[in-house]
Amino acid sequence: MHPTTQATLAALKTVSTATLTSLLFKRGFRNVFIQGARPLKPGQRLAGPAYTLRYIPSREDLDGIEAFRDPRHPQRVAVEEIPPGAVLVMDCRGDASAASAGSILAARMQVRGAAGIVTDGGLRDAAGIAALEMPAWCAGPSAPTNLIRHHALDINAPIGCGGVAVYPGDIMVGDDDGVVCIPLHLADEVARDAVEMERFEAFVLEEVQRGVPVIGLYPPTAPETKPRYEAWLARRAALP
Amino acid sequence: MHPTTQATLAALKTVSTATLTSLLFKRGFRNVFIQGARPLKPGQRLAGPAYTLRYIPSREDLDGIEAFRDPRHPQRVAVEEIPPGAVLVMDCRGDASAASAGSILAARMQVRGAAGIVTDGGLRDAAGIAALEMPAWCAGPSAPTNLIRHHALDINAPIGCGGVAVYPGDIMVGDDDGVVCIPLHLADEVARDAVEMERFEAFVLEEVQRGVPVIGLYPPTAPETKPRYEAWLARRAALP
Amino acid sequence: MHPTTQATLAALKTVSTATLTSLLFKRGFRNVFIQGARPLKPGQRLAGPAYTLRYIPSREDLDGIEAFRDPRHPQRVAVEEIPPGAVLVMDCRGDASAASAGSILAARMQVRGAAGIVTDGGLRDAAGIAALEMPAWCAGPSAPTNLIRHHALDINAPIGCGGVAVYPGDIMVGDDDGVVCIPLHLADEVARDAVEMERFEAFVLEEVQRGVPVIGLYPPTAPETKPRYEAWLARRAALP
Amino acid sequence: MHPTTQATLAALKTVSTATLTSLLFKRGFRNVFIQGARPLKPGQRLAGPAYTLRYIPSREDLDGIEAFRDPRHPQRVAVEEIPPGAVLVMDCRGDASAASAGSILAARMQVRGAAGIVTDGGLRDAAGIAALEMPAWCAGPSAPTNLIRHHALDINAPIGCGGVAVYPGDIMVGDDDGVVCIPLHLADEVARDAVEMERFEAFVLEEVQRGVPVIGLYPPTAPETKPRYEAWLARRAALP
Amino acid sequence: MHPTTQATLAALKTVSTATLTSLLFKRGFRNVFIQGARPLKPGQRLAGPAYTLRYIPSREDLDGIEAFRDPRHPQRVAVEEIPPGAVLVMDCRGDASAASAGSILAARMQVRGAAGIVTDGGLRDAAGIAALEMPAWCAGPSAPTNLIRHHALDINAPIGCGGVAVYPGDIMVGDDDGVVCIPLHLADEVARDAVEMERFEAFVLEEVQRGVPVIGLYPPTAPETKPRYEAWLARRAALP
Amino acid sequence: MHPTTQATLAALKTVSTATLTSLLFKRGFRNVFIQGARPLKPGQRLAGPAYTLRYIPSREDLDGIEAFRDPRHPQRVAVEEIPPGAVLVMDCRGDASAASAGSILAARMQVRGAAGIVTDGGLRDAAGIAALEMPAWCAGPSAPTNLIRHHALDINAPIGCGGVAVYPGDIMVGDDDGVVCIPLHLADEVARDAVEMERFEAFVLEEVQRGVPVIGLYPPTAPETKPRYEAWLARRAALP
Repeated sequence: MHPTTQATLAALKTVSTATLTSLLFKRGFRNVFIQGARPLKPGQRLAGPAYTLRYIPSREDLDGIEAFRDPRHPQRVAVEEIPPGAVLVMDCRGDASAASAGSILAARMQVRGAAGIVTDGGLRDAAGIAALEMPAWCAGPSAPTNLIRHHALDINAPIGCGGVAVYPGDIMVGDDDGVVCIPLHLADEVARDAVEMERFEAFVLEEVQRGVPVIGLYPPTAPETKPRYEAWLARRAALP
Repeated sequence: MHPTTQATLAALKTVSTATLTSLLFKRGFRNVFIQGARPLKPGQRLAGPAYTLRYIPSREDLDGIEAFRDPRHPQRVAVEEIPPGAVLVMDCRGDASAASAGSILAARMQVRGAAGIVTDGGLRDAAGIAALEMPAWCAGPSAPTNLIRHHALDINAPIGCGGVAVYPGDIMVGDDDGVVCIPLHLADEVARDAVEMERFEAFVLEEVQRGVPVIGLYPPTAPETKPRYEAWLARRAALP
Repeated sequence: MHPTTQATLAALKTVSTATLTSLLFKRGFRNVFIQGARPLKPGQRLAGPAYTLRYIPSREDLDGIEAFRDPRHPQRVAVEEIPPGAVLVMDCRGDASAASAGSILAARMQVRGAAGIVTDGGLRDAAGIAALEMPAWCAGPSAPTNLIRHHALDINAPIGCGGVAVYPGDIMVGDDDGVVCIPLHLADEVARDAVEMERFEAFVLEEVQRGVPVIGLYPPTAPETKPRYEAWLARRAALP
Repeated sequence: MHPTTQATLAALKTVSTATLTSLLFKRGFRNVFIQGARPLKPGQRLAGPAYTLRYIPSREDLDGIEAFRDPRHPQRVAVEEIPPGAVLVMDCRGDASAASAGSILAARMQVRGAAGIVTDGGLRDAAGIAALEMPAWCAGPSAPTNLIRHHALDINAPIGCGGVAVYPGDIMVGDDDGVVCIPLHLADEVARDAVEMERFEAFVLEEVQRGVPVIGLYPPTAPETKPRYEAWLARRAALP
Repeated sequence: MHPTTQATLAALKTVSTATLTSLLFKRGFRNVFIQGARPLKPGQRLAGPAYTLRYIPSREDLDGIEAFRDPRHPQRVAVEEIPPGAVLVMDCRGDASAASAGSILAARMQVRGAAGIVTDGGLRDAAGIAALEMPAWCAGPSAPTNLIRHHALDINAPIGCGGVAVYPGDIMVGDDDGVVCIPLHLADEVARDAVEMERFEAFVLEEVQRGVPVIGLYPPTAPETKPRYEAWLARRAALP
Repeated sequence: MHPTTQATLAALKTVSTATLTSLLFKRGFRNVFIQGARPLKPGQRLAGPAYTLRYIPSREDLDGIEAFRDPRHPQRVAVEEIPPGAVLVMDCRGDASAASAGSILAARMQVRGAAGIVTDGGLRDAAGIAALEMPAWCAGPSAPTNLIRHHALDINAPIGCGGVAVYPGDIMVGDDDGVVCIPLHLADEVARDAVEMERFEAFVLEEVQRGVPVIGLYPPTAPETKPRYEAWLARRAALP
């Protein structure tokens, strides 16, 4: 596996998904934002490698309530085997008419050190999950057990989630806008560029608040913008 | 009508829709969760028998603004005749491009003692309704009067709401996840089982927080789980 | 341009979109509510003339990241040329899989005195926009840059937004339910009627809270309703 | 019931749904075309009064395969009681994931003299139905029995079908474009105007084929159009 | 693998998907009909075991046009390895905005003896595929290469197709209504019952054509129906 | 305007949209296929420059039946001014609940020499249009006049159609799969490459029919494929 450092993950928790989608777009990636996954509560950040769970449609003879008694049930195995720091990413085919997980499993994942949950299906007892420290993104609260619609099948296979390809180990980053999936081999360089881009945007925002027009400033096409930015950087560096 | 006791309704207000959908699934019911109905504000609970109102598409010559002047207009009659403790459940064919009710009618319903509102259409002046004590679930705020899209037709006929069959008298239970419709003849036994199931889940959650894996614990397939639960129950019973 | 007075705009900021859709319905307008546009934060009001921006689907050779370097890029020009008090209304063909604007442009618009943002697409860094004083309504937070999906084309052409025709200069009014588009030539009379209608509804709500049934009261078909309302108005006028 | 004459029905079978929607639009009706109902085979015409069947979502304990053993099952009763010349219009809430009827029931309806079938759900053994003389319009072929999704409830109540209000007795007219629902009290006058409008359009089409521009011709705003039309009518009347 | 005999497959090619969904419903299976898959041309029949191909969303760096140069590309491998008599069932997540296969691959599959194609995505050069003898069902013709939307990943893993669970080896049966997926272990008994049920329905249809009402006949709840059917069977058996 | 020669258009009428989308994908264009536009009848081909008509949502006071009396009504003007050989491409925001044109206007366009019609809305009297020689692609037959939903606004502005950017003059090519929009500056080279690619595919299809596997053949990665193709070309050239 690619040695994505803790430094990269730490950096990614400080930058926005808006910034990341722009940097990935510059590299030719147009489809990296998990469509339809909303945070269960505002103000949370997520960064960690994807650990995937694939659901297919359920079938009445295979997915009765007793299915959970099987100690090898993939949903339960996933919760017990997801590595600390990883993000459980679930492929529910965008169907939120049933849950993909609930608050007890989420609590167990938090105890085990998982970084968060991302699903294009529903989450049940969503208020209970929102009360945890571990953040979660989903297509909406949905009370019915996954068995009415979803059959947990594969752990750590490549999946689709919210219309995006997610390969195990890809870096999932989440904020209030939603979740972006960064192909693993790009995580380090994108993280580095994102920190730099947000530094520049902090400058831009100050300029805007001072009344500077955005044309010429953002992107910095006016000749005066870059020197002004360098001066701003120097002032900031000189702060005690 | 089935004598659903106040005790059953009181119990149902303490349990989650997630629990109830699981118990109904065990009994063969897969389609009891009103799809797409979200609470107007978090933290509310609902339990009461369904009192239904059916809308069909409106027609320009029948549904002018003067339609409301008719004292027999079914929407207004429903608001004045819904029994105390009942839940107004509206069939808007899942179309939230117009409202199914607004804050004045909701206020009247609260004064009359209705338990709440459930609709697969919109609600107008949704902030005004959210400010009431009586809770409401809908497909979203929507300002336009129902007349542009909906014609109120039937009171207390069986309807579809959010893809679910709702028969008058069925017990509607709502929480932050949404609303479940319990067939009336099952309400007592499901309520009883739900209280028991949530008692067990309180134990499970404590175990999980202590670091116990979910496999073997939930469902309790490991031989040690049931004795531990019984001990937990005994300790709880012994609390002053 | 029609001389919609500041008084009209001030009045419109005090009335609800529910009231306005009813008054427009009375005049034969059924399709004035921007479908799917939700406020980024609750409790805000908007009233101002529409200044429009039209997007068409993007094309790979025209909409690379360098497109923003063009000082004539319509999105950036719109932000710099929108008149104070106007509302930026964007036609994204109802596609929220990408953003139509982000927090830096929104901040610039606030500095320039714009009244608000309405879009049937997404907004990126939506939390940053929600933190501004200038309100915004959109189909949802969405991180990807508009370039992946949208090509900014026209400024101040008639557009569709959320299924509604919006002509430049039409008066956009927003609240927690959403946004209504008032054809310009009707703004004055609708504003006047709306204030009156809400005055009557304040009376109705007090009556309802006192236990008066809605039939005969709302609309006031019972003979006693109008005298009671006049007495209420008189009492209110007599307040110090 | 309104005495819609056989002459009216006969006339309506000769005119197009396009013509009828225009004439109803002139009278203020915008929503008369059953959305999403396609003919099972091309070239058929339908005109007859609506006889309605309402489905709500099915429920597992009420809608087992044995439900059809009940001689009062509304779907079967409808098939046996629909009057000769009437059109069975079914409200499936626009859900074509299951059938609303199949070829045996359709064959029985043909034997009994029904005029046709219109549904916003599916039809099963659609090829078998298409082979009948009695025409049918639906949202698509769909093999599953109605019981998996639909519960037949009401006969001859007002319904919604394809987003349109259908009152029993309304006149359903179908062609290759689809099906229009004419409010009963307008059927006679609309039929009369439709025949006249199509006579004019036959003239227009001949003119167009001769190279006459449509502006001034259709509608006939050019001063020469009406005299030319009258001459055309006279020539036609003089034909042997 | 279950020894589904050629006799079973031959029988299944003579019965309708409508019959099969009813028989599976009797056994508790409600979700066996591939939603949205239409035949490319009318009058074809299909019966064979599922051989599956799973697509996930494509990614720009992995799914360039050169991807097809890899001799291990799963789509091409599937076409070369599908056993004679098997049905290629593709999971495109219901997205028909691109093709899942085209006419050259379909021609190769026909040469290799495959029984047919079923996909919930699109097919390109659909007219070319329709001209083959091997039948195909899809969500619609769609010209774009799969690479713009789909990445071929897994061969013969369980998948979802049109909302239905398809396990490799399940028996796919198709006709003009669409495609049903029969769990493998039920194929023999369902085939046997289907032949019998269609024999009875042939009798029913004759009765209906003679004017017999469906109530009491279908299902055969009237006491005279079964003896009449037996007499009919006897007459049929006596035919030369 | 770019001098797209008649030779290019003639070539494009001989090649498939599948081929063209592949060639455009090679050049970095992923979004060129008009989603949801189906041919009204099979077996037709289209190639010609786009002449566009933009609709926005209609408004009751502007879009009454008398709107067509205005000789400057853009829909009528478009029909009278579209150049011979051009394709009328209409932006209906993907809404087929009303028509974008009917058979009289289509007949006029045929007389005037237009090449065809492409719309992401509906067409009325679709059977009448299908009977013309001029081909048409649309989202489906739809009887209601455009006035109930659409307001014709702009002629020959860039538009979106079926999710694709269409600039006036872009080359529209249609077949049974649907319609592709080729950016004008690429038409000549794409046409040239398409003819060559289809020549190769004719060879491939013959090989496949002879039993050659697709791997190594298509694309021609096996060393023997290209010499075999050259021999095939030589044989073909030598045919009398």
